[in-house]
Amino acid sequence: MRVASRLLVVACLSLASGTLAAQGKPRARDLGIPFDGTPGRLNAITDVAGVEVGQVTLIAGDGPLVVGKGPVRTGVTVIHPRGRRSQDQVFAGYASLNPNAEMTGIQWVKESGFLAGPIALTNTLSVGLVRDAIIEWAIKQGWSDWLFALPVVGENWDSPLNDIDGFHVEKRNVFAALDGARGGAVAEGNVGAGTGIICHEFKCGIGTSSRVVDKAAGGFTVGVLVQANQGARERLNIAGVPVGLEITDLLPCYVTPPSGAGDSSCVKRNPQRPPGSGSIVVVIATDAPLLSHQLDRLALRAMLAVGRVGGLGENDSGDWAVAFSTANPGASVDTGFARITMLPNDRINPLFEATIQATEEAIVNAMVAAETMTGANGFRVYAVPHDRLVAAMKKYGRIK
Amino acid sequence: MRVASRLLVVACLSLASGTLAAQGKPRARDLGIPFDGTPGRLNAITDVAGVEVGQVTLIAGDGPLVVGKGPVRTGVTVIHPRGRRSQDQVFAGYASLNPNAEMTGIQWVKESGFLAGPIALTNTLSVGLVRDAIIEWAIKQGWSDWLFALPVVGENWDSPLNDIDGFHVEKRNVFAALDGARGGAVAEGNVGAGTGIICHEFKCGIGTSSRVVDKAAGGFTVGVLVQANQGARERLNIAGVPVGLEITDLLPCYVTPPSGAGDSSCVKRNPQRPPGSGSIVVVIATDAPLLSHQLDRLALRAMLAVGRVGGLGENDSGDWAVAFSTANPGASVDTGFARITMLPNDRINPLFEATIQATEEAIVNAMVAAETMTGANGFRVYAVPHDRLVAAMKKYGRIK
Amino acid sequence: MRVASRLLVVACLSLASGTLAAQGKPRARDLGIPFDGTPGRLNAITDVAGVEVGQVTLIAGDGPLVVGKGPVRTGVTVIHPRGRRSQDQVFAGYASLNPNAEMTGIQWVKESGFLAGPIALTNTLSVGLVRDAIIEWAIKQGWSDWLFALPVVGENWDSPLNDIDGFHVEKRNVFAALDGARGGAVAEGNVGAGTGIICHEFKCGIGTSSRVVDKAAGGFTVGVLVQANQGARERLNIAGVPVGLEITDLLPCYVTPPSGAGDSSCVKRNPQRPPGSGSIVVVIATDAPLLSHQLDRLALRAMLAVGRVGGLGENDSGDWAVAFSTANPGASVDTGFARITMLPNDRINPLFEATIQATEEAIVNAMVAAETMTGANGFRVYAVPHDRLVAAMKKYGRIK
Amino acid sequence: MRVASRLLVVACLSLASGTLAAQGKPRARDLGIPFDGTPGRLNAITDVAGVEVGQVTLIAGDGPLVVGKGPVRTGVTVIHPRGRRSQDQVFAGYASLNPNAEMTGIQWVKESGFLAGPIALTNTLSVGLVRDAIIEWAIKQGWSDWLFALPVVGENWDSPLNDIDGFHVEKRNVFAALDGARGGAVAEGNVGAGTGIICHEFKCGIGTSSRVVDKAAGGFTVGVLVQANQGARERLNIAGVPVGLEITDLLPCYVTPPSGAGDSSCVKRNPQRPPGSGSIVVVIATDAPLLSHQLDRLALRAMLAVGRVGGLGENDSGDWAVAFSTANPGASVDTGFARITMLPNDRINPLFEATIQATEEAIVNAMVAAETMTGANGFRVYAVPHDRLVAAMKKYGRIK
Repeated sequence: MRVASRLLVVACLSLASGTLAAQGKPRARDLGIPFDGTPGRLNAITDVAGVEVGQVTLIAGDGPLVVGKGPVRTGVTVIHPRGRRSQDQVFAGYASLNPNAEMTGIQWVKESGFLAGPIALTNTLSVGLVRDAIIEWAIKQGWSDWLFALPVVGENWDSPLNDIDGFHVEKRNVFAALDGARGGAVAEGNVGAGTGIICHEFKCGIGTSSRVVDKAAGGFTVGVLVQANQGARERLNIAGVPVGLEITDLLPCYVTPPSGAGDSSCVKRNPQRPPGSGSIVVVIATDAPLLSHQLDRLALRAMLAVGRVGGLGENDSGDWAVAFSTANPGASVDTGFARITMLPNDRINPLFEATIQATEEAIVNAMVAAETMTGANGFRVYAVPHDRLVAAMKKYGRIK
Repeated sequence: MRVASRLLVVACLSLASGTLAAQGKPRARDLGIPFDGTPGRLNAITDVAGVEVGQVTLIAGDGPLVVGKGPVRTGVTVIHPRGRRSQDQVFAGYASLNPNAEMTGIQWVKESGFLAGPIALTNTLSVGLVRDAIIEWAIKQGWSDWLFALPVVGENWDSPLNDIDGFHVEKRNVFAALDGARGGAVAEGNVGAGTGIICHEFKCGIGTSSRVVDKAAGGFTVGVLVQANQGARERLNIAGVPVGLEITDLLPCYVTPPSGAGDSSCVKRNPQRPPGSGSIVVVIATDAPLLSHQLDRLALRAMLAVGRVGGLGENDSGDWAVAFSTANPGASVDTGFARITMLPNDRINPLFEATIQATEEAIVNAMVAAETMTGANGFRVYAVPHDRLVAAMKKYGRIK
Repeated sequence: MRVASRLLVVACLSLASGTLAAQGKPRARDLGIPFDGTPGRLNAITDVAGVEVGQVTLIAGDGPLVVGKGPVRTGVTVIHPRGRRSQDQVFAGYASLNPNAEMTGIQWVKESGFLAGPIALTNTLSVGLVRDAIIEWAIKQGWSDWLFALPVVGENWDSPLNDIDGFHVEKRNVFAALDGARGGAVAEGNVGAGTGIICHEFKCGIGTSSRVVDKAAGGFTVGVLVQANQGARERLNIAGVPVGLEITDLLPCYVTPPSGAGDSSCVKRNPQRPPGSGSIVVVIATDAPLLSHQLDRLALRAMLAVGRVGGLGENDSGDWAVAFSTANPGASVDTGFARITMLPNDRINPLFEATIQATEEAIVNAMVAAETMTGANGFRVYAVPHDRLVAAMKKYGRIK
Repeated sequence: MRVASRLLVVACLSLASGTLAAQGKPRARDLGIPFDGTPGRLNAITDVAGVEVGQVTLIAGDGPLVVGKGPVRTGVTVIHPRGRRSQDQVFAGYASLNPNAEMTGIQWVKESGFLAGPIALTNTLSVGLVRDAIIEWAIKQGWSDWLFALPVVGENWDSPLNDIDGFHVEKRNVFAALDGARGGAVAEGNVGAGTGIICHEFKCGIGTSSRVVDKAAGGFTVGVLVQANQGARERLNIAGVPVGLEITDLLPCYVTPPSGAGDSSCVKRNPQRPPGSGSIVVVIATDAPLLSHQLDRLALRAMLAVGRVGGLGENDSGDWAVAFSTANPGASVDTGFARITMLPNDRINPLFEATIQATEEAIVNAMVAAETMTGANGFRVYAVPHDRLVAAMKKYGRIK
């Protein structure tokens, strides 16, 4: 068996419209989970005008792990702040709760105040390839390699579902994600860089959400996309409900041969994946005219959402947030002076709140959209059962 | 009327024993509010051996504000990491969610890894005096002013209850707090630096809590003391319950003449105190042998607790945490080499969790212990009504 | 003897015009020391339009140290970015090479991007009083205490010349410095916060310098003021010449009774003042339209100048720089949006170079302007002899 | 012509002994340039016991640039803190003057306090591949990919000498550098990651130096290795001598056909390589028992040396330093507690000074060792002429 011949590469282009209809499956708020604030039309990062998302999903093989052969459960997700054809930089900032994960390029974002090119997400061991591939892609577009030599690439550890040591992401996958990026609805769950990841010991992946702040607060949109791979089950908290204490079974385990949920043969947790290891990367887009130091502040608030859902910023967790503003086009172009617009600090609180709300919902969306997956060596990770999630909400008075 | 003649100075020495009995009033867990984790004997920062707390409460006058005359509602709280007689420095670190508040001395803590002398808390405008007074006190103890010239002093804004522009804290108050510090139970609510402060638009103040981690995790204690002055009502969240949406009345307001809760004449919020302004300082003590960079990490986790209770790190909020370890006595003494003990990073997660839990409970303790106060110009801030708090817990399934 | 009765308070208002003429003594470049770049008209921080400097010098008493009685050798220096009557905030940033010194208020500058009110410098133990006094002064001006509650105050340790433990700075001295500030030439050497300080084991103090960058680079001005108290003699380096190896005598020492330079009885260095302890604060003003994160960058470059003159950022040294831009008036005023101008990063190098050059010259100016001083307990610190400084320059080919 | 067939891969293993003899060419101090402090036996980073350096040099082709075909002038340099066979982590820290360059893995070093595995240096566009290759190599050694998944890789831009867009570094080159690393003398100049780089507009590359502090200061060794690609000619300063103002010719230029130095046809500077762009990475090793926060401090001092030689931390420059301590073996191994030794802060100044001195000498060593190189499109960069360097030293009284 050659993995390559069976490798299923799915380029997740934009979905046509809507969200529930488009994906054919419910999102967290479709289940009735109460979230605060008002989402945008798509309830996605792409509600911020110009933002495009491209994802490539790599799924191939089953059974025993043979390093380099698979099974493969990984992928790439890219976000173009101003769309895939724009070289125009954006003001950007970042924060980290516990940077036990790579985030290339971020120090120059901090120093310069600007992000050049896309943000990409992938698995931990493919960060280098994805980073180099973005540069190669930028060169091919005729963009100055000088400006795009420090791409921002974040990651999650997607072993043991994925043969991470096999380095299965290839440059062409990165190019496909970059070129395939579009606005519109964003696929969630087991897709792109979220293909093989786990949060709070349920199958997880890519999630997205957005908020539109009141007209009085400027009417700005904040969109969030997460690659969610963090958290221990017992600390899972959704809308204030201790879900992790209500659903204590369905833990990740090995099934040999593969068997159904709750199968008594599926009991062995992976010792190399202790609960609470894993990471989360949060990408925050806004059209509010924030400068870089203000975007650092937005990014830090995303970490509060990670905490609300039950994250600790565990020692093994790489908890990062990157935030950018699509306002102020052309600000990085040297024409002598840049004339820019800045939101006063006194008006930033609604954006802080929107960021926390959208990040929380994006994490739950990632979990709700993900589907049970069995990967390398029969390691199985269960999706959160929607009915039991709803039941927990009802028990604690959050759904009538 | 001269304020001085009526100034009530209360040096809150250690309470004899117990917590509920000692204070004669219930704490948050006495009401049945569920908190995770196991507290220490006193459920206080003083459960960490050697830690001493001293508080001086300044309450005087009523009626119209006359700057410099009162009314006075302020104070000082000091924490001696190794007791009031020890010059021995401790490893220390810090974090800030939104440093819109003074925290003197903290940059040298970060650079050197050590905290020398006590941590003090007071109101925003008295930081300078308190800082200088600590140095003067250290000199009087015969300690080297060279080493103790950068005291760590944090603050909260206690106007409009307090005549903050009147600079009512005096050096002798600071000396009294420093000298009066003791181990044992810690007074909570309207005391010391918590006298005139407000959280989530209820009367608030000083709160404390502690956690003891499992023996397998080292059996260490984490103690927390908060000066809690942050948050908007509508975001108040306790044990996952949206308390701020359940108790929407009893907002701070002006009563002239003073009248009872719910009095229809008490409707005007203070425009200079928008909801969500204010600050929180969290002081974290532990006996776990953590180095300074590990204590930075603990401090950052305290901010997750602020978020869980409903803080955003609002633009007007000064959200700081300082953490220290009482392990490794003598580490800062120059004897050629220091032989020190360090907890491996792989064992730090239980301390992260303990910090979040204790910070959350300390905030709620501050709120539960505080009592309704009327201050300058008849500004009144209500205590959270215990019965309605319990009712909200029951409604959302958190108290049976 | 009562110190107060003999206390000489000198409010150093602006000098009328010129620099050499005005001060009646040569500055470093008057001696022929070669510096790179083009200074502004005054070669002072006040070359940046709007900047005002006020200084109060406190000198009183002689002989044995009696804590609280003197001798007194200290003071206050304040810098108003937009003049003493303006509440308008400025974009600001900071850097530190070794923050073993207090710098109040700086974390909020970093977070918010803005500096409100003046920057003040004083001795280490008077930071608190100066900080509180600035707030009191702002309140008296009718400014909002809310906005001006986090003043930026830096410091240097001016013992053993000064009775630092005596806390001799009073609030009225701070008010005098604040109110007396003016544009124009700036007094250097033993004045204001520089009265009792020492650099590279010569008498030092306040120094200032400026640079105007080429018209092609925007023609901006960078002005620097230093409070220079850092460095060991053997590392003193001026214009690349190892001056500290050329002038190895004239070290600080005790004279009892006071005697002349080189007196053989003056040999005892102060054990509590090891060479290389002490600190330097650099204040950088520019009219270039830089945002806060760009001003952080300017501030860090000032530290390179400290290094060029021979500083190590020694463990006992508090090396700070604060930078602000007078461009973008009104940027912090909340009118919905701020329309601001930003210099592109690609044009920032000339400002980096100007900052380094002006900082280096300001340090040397402080040293050249200072005069030999004898303080508490007969501790004497010698001024660098101008003739020997020039001779060293000639020996190493820097003056023909 | 196929580049591959002509690719000269030079694995620079350790040189047998000595330094001048071993390399057959003079180093900076062999020319008589005065440096302060006492170097170790090899005057190299490998004077710190256990440190091993491996370098692979890639030189191939001449003439016109054909992206992907060459000419090739690049390479890889790796530093194993405890030798190539040790998985044992080291305490580590970092600093950056201007992080316009990639430095992967560094945020986790900061957070955790430890560096796992080697540090590698290469060209800007090959960082990703080198990073992934280190992980692959670690997996092959049987090391846990989990622990070694965040390698530290720094870089310099080696265009236009090198066909940087051609991505010529291959994983096997990285493996060769990792496996070929040894103690002993370290090749300098046009080798490894220094092959195609330029400093102060002279040919530059890898340089190294060391210092041994006095026995009274602990007798510790500080070793430095630089990849020096920074600086403009006019600011070049060596031992206080303005060398860049003395040697104003021999600027990088295009020669077609290749011609000798000073050839009048070689006048065109590369517009894509403005003076002062480029970067410097400084790697600092010590056997002093420093903790991570102390190593951050050492790293920052290296930046002072960059400044002394004439660097500004220009906007296009990526100025990084990484510091590690080989003391405290086993400190990162989880055995419940780590018993470690820490040098008191009060004893750190000699190490600060040693770091600055060794970094300065390492930069000059890189420049002195490098040889004139002609690369892609006939771009030529001249070596600094030793005789004129000596002449400048004499003119300014630094060599008799």
